[in-house]
Amino acid sequence: MTEQGPLSGVVIVDLSRVLAGPYCTMVLADLGARVIKVEAPPRGDDSRHYGPFVNGKSAYFMSLNRGKESIVLDLKAEADRSLFLRLLGKADVLVENFRPGTMQKLGLGWEELHKRHPRLIYAAVSGFGQNGPYSSRPAYDIIVQAMGGVMSLTGHPDSPPVRVGVSIGDLVAALFLCVGINAALYHRALTGEGTLIDVAMLDAQVAILENAIARYTSTGVVPQPLGTRHPSITPFDVFKASDGYVVIAAGNDSLFARLCAVLGRSDLAANPLFLNNELRTRHQAALKDELETELGRQPVRHWLAVLEEAGVPCGPLNTVDKVLADPQIKARNMVVSTEDPVAGLLTLAGNPLKFSTFPDPTTRPPAPDLDADRGRVLDLLAPED
Amino acid sequence: MTEQGPLSGVVIVDLSRVLAGPYCTMVLADLGARVIKVEAPPRGDDSRHYGPFVNGKSAYFMSLNRGKESIVLDLKAEADRSLFLRLLGKADVLVENFRPGTMQKLGLGWEELHKRHPRLIYAAVSGFGQNGPYSSRPAYDIIVQAMGGVMSLTGHPDSPPVRVGVSIGDLVAALFLCVGINAALYHRALTGEGTLIDVAMLDAQVAILENAIARYTSTGVVPQPLGTRHPSITPFDVFKASDGYVVIAAGNDSLFARLCAVLGRSDLAANPLFLNNELRTRHQAALKDELETELGRQPVRHWLAVLEEAGVPCGPLNTVDKVLADPQIKARNMVVSTEDPVAGLLTLAGNPLKFSTFPDPTTRPPAPDLDADRGRVLDLLAPED
Repeated sequence: MTEQGPLSGVVIVDLSRVLAGPYCTMVLADLGARVIKVEAPPRGDDSRHYGPFVNGKSAYFMSLNRGKESIVLDLKAEADRSLFLRLLGKADVLVENFRPGTMQKLGLGWEELHKRHPRLIYAAVSGFGQNGPYSSRPAYDIIVQAMGGVMSLTGHPDSPPVRVGVSIGDLVAALFLCVGINAALYHRALTGEGTLIDVAMLDAQVAILENAIARYTSTGVVPQPLGTRHPSITPFDVFKASDGYVVIAAGNDSLFARLCAVLGRSDLAANPLFLNNELRTRHQAALKDELETELGRQPVRHWLAVLEEAGVPCGPLNTVDKVLADPQIKARNMVVSTEDPVAGLLTLAGNPLKFSTFPDPTTRPPAPDLDADRGRVLDLLAPED
Repeated sequence: MTEQGPLSGVVIVDLSRVLAGPYCTMVLADLGARVIKVEAPPRGDDSRHYGPFVNGKSAYFMSLNRGKESIVLDLKAEADRSLFLRLLGKADVLVENFRPGTMQKLGLGWEELHKRHPRLIYAAVSGFGQNGPYSSRPAYDIIVQAMGGVMSLTGHPDSPPVRVGVSIGDLVAALFLCVGINAALYHRALTGEGTLIDVAMLDAQVAILENAIARYTSTGVVPQPLGTRHPSITPFDVFKASDGYVVIAAGNDSLFARLCAVLGRSDLAANPLFLNNELRTRHQAALKDELETELGRQPVRHWLAVLEEAGVPCGPLNTVDKVLADPQIKARNMVVSTEDPVAGLLTLAGNPLKFSTFPDPTTRPPAPDLDADRGRVLDLLAPED
């Protein structure tokens, strides 16, 4: 077998459901790991039952579980629990996203498993983490987006709050977990030592506040949402053209002058209100009005062509259909497909990790049916295990 | 020396500037790696000059470069270029976020470096990636948020677009690069083989569209922004209380009944319009009005207390000041500090990766002054190198 990726040969046992855990193990599978979903009877991963459905199969589930295997085990039943423990003996990593305490109640907490399998890496992602006063509370994406501060920075001033339209509460935590698992695999390759990795969705939101914390603590001013504009660079915003929106990022005097020339408004570059970036930022509302008056005369396609020609950084505001048709995104193999035996051909996001030494296939294996890989998974266990 | 993290002993040479690259190497430094920033004369990393400033030092820069070392090298000057190449002989990973083509022009492209240092991992993050029609274009966070589709999903229906208030265009790419570097380190520990990792900010945005692609391709309906509500679960939204907002995620009939009881409105749970999740989602605007009428009678603090008591998932919408004061976030050591010799005590986000086997210190080493570690870095090079 040719190596599919840097994690070829790594075995992940995956108890996780719905989003944060499954997204993490999807990235690991894309890196070449063998991911074995251990699902609870009778219905398996909850997201198998989330719409929309294609020929009765969940598009949500299929998009997050490509290339994994599935076995059903009832961890509350002794025989299955014992199979599960033997399976962990063949695994490199266990991933779970239960509420903290659940695994301990099953007798499968980190301490027990570490004693039995000292090389096992135990990766847990939860809403609030394994300790602290909120540890046992349920969390959902929207709750951690709100509690972690990202929602307070997103939206238009004096308008109702806005949730980021993708589940970054789950996904950023999933990516941190993925970083941690790979770092732990590296450390174990050198030392033989397993570790527990504990990632909280709320913590991961705090970690992406980046300079907002430094801004607040150094100035005392609580950061507020700014719509689409940049706090200190102007024009660096989304503008209305005649048929949609165009993003323009003209971050210095020279780019601003080029932008004004393209718009036939070189007078703006000479206007004392807009002479430098500081002035442009102070008068950004007035400048935006002026720019949109001109931009409103032509469609997005026109402006992108002439702005690119002039070397002014810009881009369209793509809806999902446009994203899938974008030539750069196609050239980067970021739209891949999978052939499901029941649902047929499905379109999925590709893997953004491109390695010189590994293939980046245009098609991916489908998501597994519930318990579909029982035989293959049990084959991992030699009779004496 | 005690091991600081799973990457203790790993040496990263970091040519990156501003955000995506430096965020990635900050995470690597938090994992124990030695990160050597190689900065260009005379001013170094551009972000050293971004406000706000504390005693003349950039809070932006300090918040992203804690625990790194700095040396100034002019890669266009022969002597420094030669020092740089010798330094790479001592490095495990090179990180850069130049526009594609820049390193080749310096004679430092992947092919050349791989020939000279076959074990070196070369990690590049750029706006559009190393190939494809837009490869050489400049990209900024707001451009990839718009082009990649996330902006088309974020905001209120029929309102102007909204940029996610943190730079997820940069940060998600940084996290993917970090996953790739760690996976490549693991692979190299087993095989000795170096690799090129090529991450594009635009690709990373596509990768977090998660089920939006599957939703679009399976239904033909282009996904639109939904404000704060969940597309198919109700009530799962942000609601106005008398003094601010509260998030409520009552995802099933039993939680909905409990919510109604807490509000003294058990009639709502019995209302034929709201009898099950499908009906509640169909009539979500009417339900939100009813709920906000009640919620508007008391402050956020009151509702959080009684909802938690009743076991209804909920949370506050925290601004950055509230995030830093939150007891869970404190208990998780997600607010750490660094003592800068000039700027004084700074507050920073902690590391969301918690390992059982490594410490999670409450203080971090400060960001380096420009060229401050020249001696220590050159000590890496034995005279004969």
